[in-house]
Amino acid sequence: MKDITLKEIATKLGISITTVSKALKNYPDVSDKTKRAVIELAQKLHYTPNSFAVNLRTKESKTIGLIIPEVVHHFFSNVVNAIINEAEKNGYLVIILQSNETLALEKKQVELLINKRVDGIIMSLSNESNNDDHIKEIINRNIPFVMFDKIAKLSKCSKVIIDDQKAAFNAVQHLIDNGCKKIAHIRGPLNPQNSIDRYIGYKKALEKNNIPFDTKLVYTCENVTFEEGKNFAKQIINEHPDIDGVFAITDLVAVGTLAYFNENKVNVPEQVSVIGFSNWFMSQVLTPKLSTVDQPSHEMGIESFNLLLEEMNCHKEGIPFTPRTVELETRVIIRESSIKNKKN
Amino acid sequence: MKDITLKEIATKLGISITTVSKALKNYPDVSDKTKRAVIELAQKLHYTPNSFAVNLRTKESKTIGLIIPEVVHHFFSNVVNAIINEAEKNGYLVIILQSNETLALEKKQVELLINKRVDGIIMSLSNESNNDDHIKEIINRNIPFVMFDKIAKLSKCSKVIIDDQKAAFNAVQHLIDNGCKKIAHIRGPLNPQNSIDRYIGYKKALEKNNIPFDTKLVYTCENVTFEEGKNFAKQIINEHPDIDGVFAITDLVAVGTLAYFNENKVNVPEQVSVIGFSNWFMSQVLTPKLSTVDQPSHEMGIESFNLLLEEMNCHKEGIPFTPRTVELETRVIIRESSIKNKKN
Repeated sequence: MKDITLKEIATKLGISITTVSKALKNYPDVSDKTKRAVIELAQKLHYTPNSFAVNLRTKESKTIGLIIPEVVHHFFSNVVNAIINEAEKNGYLVIILQSNETLALEKKQVELLINKRVDGIIMSLSNESNNDDHIKEIINRNIPFVMFDKIAKLSKCSKVIIDDQKAAFNAVQHLIDNGCKKIAHIRGPLNPQNSIDRYIGYKKALEKNNIPFDTKLVYTCENVTFEEGKNFAKQIINEHPDIDGVFAITDLVAVGTLAYFNENKVNVPEQVSVIGFSNWFMSQVLTPKLSTVDQPSHEMGIESFNLLLEEMNCHKEGIPFTPRTVELETRVIIRESSIKNKKN
Repeated sequence: MKDITLKEIATKLGISITTVSKALKNYPDVSDKTKRAVIELAQKLHYTPNSFAVNLRTKESKTIGLIIPEVVHHFFSNVVNAIINEAEKNGYLVIILQSNETLALEKKQVELLINKRVDGIIMSLSNESNNDDHIKEIINRNIPFVMFDKIAKLSKCSKVIIDDQKAAFNAVQHLIDNGCKKIAHIRGPLNPQNSIDRYIGYKKALEKNNIPFDTKLVYTCENVTFEEGKNFAKQIINEHPDIDGVFAITDLVAVGTLAYFNENKVNVPEQVSVIGFSNWFMSQVLTPKLSTVDQPSHEMGIESFNLLLEEMNCHKEGIPFTPRTVELETRVIIRESSIKNKKN
């Protein structure tokens, strides 16, 4: 079916295009009778205003872009959920792109969104990205922009984050409070800020409790997967049979660790306590139930959209906007995998 | 930063707008020197073609809309993942909307996408929806359209489905083959086609094996949640202490069932075997590991996008397109939760 234009409605009713346009916008200088006739015919012919033409006039697309590393991921799917719902409430549509954790794809996607003239961009960086040119390009073009979770610290834009150092410190302190003396850390890749900060938090907790830091107890994920959790668990228990605690960068890796320990009769938590990060849904249905750090994904999505909305509104009105950083609270969730019955 | 237009580039270089436009499109009748000058200046000024203007000319948005019930859902996030990646390969962006399982929201979202003039729509229906007016509207407007998984059987559009009846039949047959004689079914809501079909598959398997069908053994979810799985497990074991098998509409519900049985020392699989549907990631890391039906979510995403692409291409060329239905294979995945060691 071809699109109906104002001209066709005007021709059929024998009135001018201007009158049709005014009637549809309910202008007072058009008679009620004409308005009714126009609206009835428009409905009958399935007339919809051409949004490209409307966009060209208003310079607003009422669309934002969201780039995340991956959507099949409990944390990110929760953020996406919150952003879509919040955007909809405010009349915005969301284009979602996945970087699959690669810088090259992320750069291409930023370009696509710029060319698409979205009204704003929300982004969580891939593991390979930092304050690269594509990020600077968004900021130089003065496009409303918010980063969340995996951010570039030095970029001049709004950010929604947690204090990863403090959260990781608290997780490791909890293991120590429950009797752990030799704790391994399965960390994330070397580049992302949150992975660096969680590693620093781990080190600080050891230091605070006078436990010597040993680089041999730190294992580095490349892709932060279930399989890496399983493989490192095996390596850890073989290389350090006297290990009594594991802090994993995220629940998916901790779940891999638990799976290996369960299959190989390494008693969790008696022999080795395990704590993850992020509080994925599945953590509460495992045996033993996984202790973790709650990361407020839903709030992170809501805050990210609302910061963007504020900037988009300023942008529209030509009012200067000063980027802000919102830091959300985390808390350690204590479940079965970290409570030893007999303390050493 | 304000948008740079062709006119500004033309003025700065003292040439015509037409020449600038031709230079950017690499027309042969513009000299290489001029082309270089235009391209250099365009890059320097961050010129990007105004996509609204381009859209108005080509009548293509290179954007599709995707409406799903919810994104925080292992099956749907996998489909979304496949569709985004496939769309990107083909130069399309994807606007994602969630109906949150309500008809009212779904209707509104269809209208938004129509007004946005997306090139095509992919959709999985909410639990409340069927062949309603908003579905007919998409088809009447001749907008390329594919439904997947939760479909309206009678709608004249392309569909990507599995044979839910057959898949459910096979799951229940597997329980029977492993010694189950009294099998409860935790079914989905009454409206969605896939929920109806899985229920029919359950009934047919009992019938084929001369096991009397008993409506009292059928429990109906409203929201298909983990909590409903837990609550129904309690109800089932209280009302029918001699039950020896449970078939749940989806893994999330089966995981709730397992959680209740584990906590209350109902031995799975010895006393009660459990099988789910859809093969969520977490099913393989539970204790005991959950048997299930593999639903090919990734393939479903790829097939849905490719069917839509075919229709969009026909639409663009003005070639008639006949909607097709693609049915994908499923298979029963046998894990620990359904294999009784001693058959009765």
